[in-house]
Amino acid sequence: MDNHKKFLQEAINLSITNVKEGKGGPFGAIIVKNNEIIAHGTNQVTMTNDPTAHAEIVALRNACKILQDFQLTDCILYTSCEPCPMCMGAIFWARPKSVYFGNTREDAAKIGFDDSFIYEQLALDPVKRLIPSYHLKNTHAQEAFDLWRETTTKILY
Amino acid sequence: MDNHKKFLQEAINLSITNVKEGKGGPFGAIIVKNNEIIAHGTNQVTMTNDPTAHAEIVALRNACKILQDFQLTDCILYTSCEPCPMCMGAIFWARPKSVYFGNTREDAAKIGFDDSFIYEQLALDPVKRLIPSYHLKNTHAQEAFDLWRETTTKILY
Repeated sequence: MDNHKKFLQEAINLSITNVKEGKGGPFGAIIVKNNEIIAHGTNQVTMTNDPTAHAEIVALRNACKILQDFQLTDCILYTSCEPCPMCMGAIFWARPKSVYFGNTREDAAKIGFDDSFIYEQLALDPVKRLIPSYHLKNTHAQEAFDLWRETTTKILY
Repeated sequence: MDNHKKFLQEAINLSITNVKEGKGGPFGAIIVKNNEIIAHGTNQVTMTNDPTAHAEIVALRNACKILQDFQLTDCILYTSCEPCPMCMGAIFWARPKSVYFGNTREDAAKIGFDDSFIYEQLALDPVKRLIPSYHLKNTHAQEAFDLWRETTTKILY
């Protein structure tokens, strides 16, 4: 078995155990750096009342805590299922070098998970989505951005 | 000033204070239920080494903790800036009824935030993104999904 498949199997094992132990949805993820597993994550949405506690988010947050960094440079994420848009967005902010997954978003849709639907929704104009987002004009919102631009001591991320 | 603008101003105030106090990026958010603010969030990415700690995610997680629910039924999210794909994904999982924002993703791009870029990336084929995602076939990933389907005691989310 090649290395990628071996690490993916670890994430899959977590996804199976998570269902068997009744702890949440059928999803597991691990973060690997220098060929070593540095963090794990399983779906904890219902157990912790946290809709963001997807396996990938939990694994990313754990890995960042361990590395004491908000960037996952040179890390690889292995996840039992293709990440949903929330998790994929988190991946783009954490910036690991690549992702390997088992089940696809279509597989997830077949057992009732909305990933595929959310990808479609995000491609729509914000006001036309099922949860609409409205842009309010003539506010002071730009003030924070101006301050940010002028601040010389800020930590970029 | 109408109600939506009044609540959005609260989120904007948080975004301004966050920069002034050197605590993170220029973003703030609040969650409102029954015309009352139930939770706040500010960007805490660099302060907590958590790339997922965007104002909206922090506010959603705080609101869920307060309501002891993983769903934000009948809630409204007010955020100083249009949510990035990660936060928009989280919104679709937490399911508030609507979102109001001040700055746009284009405004965010102008001061160096990748939101707009990530929206473009997510629309691409996973293997063609700058952080590529690879689907490994012939794994046991489906096993967790089969187990989930067969489990009668699961909590749907």
